[in-house]
Amino acid sequence: MPRYKLTIEYHGTPFVGWQRQDNGTTVQAEIEAALFRFCGVETAITAAGRTDAGVHASGQVIHFNLNRDFSADRVQGGLNYHLKPHPIAVRSAEIVDDQFHARFSAIGRSYLYRIITRRAPLAIDRDRAWWVRVPLDAEAMAEGAKHLLGHHDFTSFRATACQARSPEKTLDVLDITRMDEEIRIVAEARSFLHHQVRNMVGTLKMVGEGKWSPAHVKTALDARNRAAAGPTAPPDGLYLTGVVY
Amino acid sequence: MPRYKLTIEYHGTPFVGWQRQDNGTTVQAEIEAALFRFCGVETAITAAGRTDAGVHASGQVIHFNLNRDFSADRVQGGLNYHLKPHPIAVRSAEIVDDQFHARFSAIGRSYLYRIITRRAPLAIDRDRAWWVRVPLDAEAMAEGAKHLLGHHDFTSFRATACQARSPEKTLDVLDITRMDEEIRIVAEARSFLHHQVRNMVGTLKMVGEGKWSPAHVKTALDARNRAAAGPTAPPDGLYLTGVVY
Repeated sequence: MPRYKLTIEYHGTPFVGWQRQDNGTTVQAEIEAALFRFCGVETAITAAGRTDAGVHASGQVIHFNLNRDFSADRVQGGLNYHLKPHPIAVRSAEIVDDQFHARFSAIGRSYLYRIITRRAPLAIDRDRAWWVRVPLDAEAMAEGAKHLLGHHDFTSFRATACQARSPEKTLDVLDITRMDEEIRIVAEARSFLHHQVRNMVGTLKMVGEGKWSPAHVKTALDARNRAAAGPTAPPDGLYLTGVVY
Repeated sequence: MPRYKLTIEYHGTPFVGWQRQDNGTTVQAEIEAALFRFCGVETAITAAGRTDAGVHASGQVIHFNLNRDFSADRVQGGLNYHLKPHPIAVRSAEIVDDQFHARFSAIGRSYLYRIITRRAPLAIDRDRAWWVRVPLDAEAMAEGAKHLLGHHDFTSFRATACQARSPEKTLDVLDITRMDEEIRIVAEARSFLHHQVRNMVGTLKMVGEGKWSPAHVKTALDARNRAAAGPTAPPDGLYLTGVVY
């Protein structure tokens, strides 16, 4: 029973999320269906992070066992063939130790959030970034972001549905860079609470608009109250870019 | 009768091309339809370049006259409203002199061609770049590209259907840069022959693969014979990025 570790890319818009469910097609269900077409055996897969509806990934990681010794190359090629026409691709595949677990072995996760600020709607980047119609002050956003770095109780940035035992997390990176009309936010941590990145982005957008001062981010964090922070940013701009083991 | 100059972005995949025709929806037809919904008058528009089916634009330019004095802001907002849900957006609008002509006043056009080289199919960038399964030598491609710079008879890179009077053009820029798995080719000239950029890219890809030497690009150019150059690169990777007046 070799165990395989795969790095997966997907465009999240057509899916109701990662996790298999009844109300629409999911990334997990399509990969499991492709795996069945490839090897003829029902096989459950486990992901590093269960992304929400509309969230993208360029570096999601999954693992599963197969009952035959396929080469990693053959698993990658076969799955990519059977995943057509879905916007899901296996970027790499390797055989790993039985102890490897895509979720529990992970020691770091990185996300990218793309905001495009302009008056015109997005055509080429539609569903691939958050369209914000007003200019944002990226310097103020970066100033506000500093208050979130480090070990904190992130209750103010946690979805009500979050199942994590503790609201305490350590945020290692929260970088904000501007490239013309685009603002890119990179977030890295061992793990995140449900909606944490989108809630941090929604809060920083309030700062970028000038509605809140950078210092208000600390006030929101200290409140330990979801209502004290900004709204949840839409899924369109969020990408799971990598998992560290 | 004020004249308007608009800069347009579109994702070209759902369209059979720029120009109004009978066999499918076109960018021109959708903009003219939105213009009719906006002002109630049938209005013909003229573009700087008539892009082919599947080709994208971030900086296409059009002009048209209206019989009422709408502000440029109102034309932009109204058209963007009426263009929904098509992946077409008006990035900017201004009122220009009656002498301005989107096509004939243009003194420069710039294109970007995106190639992504990797084994896995494209998910996030599907239809937005040319997926090439083998590695390409960007330095060799840049070496080959030098032979195309300047004033030449570009017959070897001209589509059979090309209606230009002369095959002679002056290519001002043909830059090739690599960013990880992506190769970006920027081409600038006063004007291009039909399929010229895609035929140059298809030829440079042969060099990148090592099938042709960089010097073979000069051989292909000097042959003044379409059969001597490489195949036409697919439309997916091509973007009209700007027009200079």
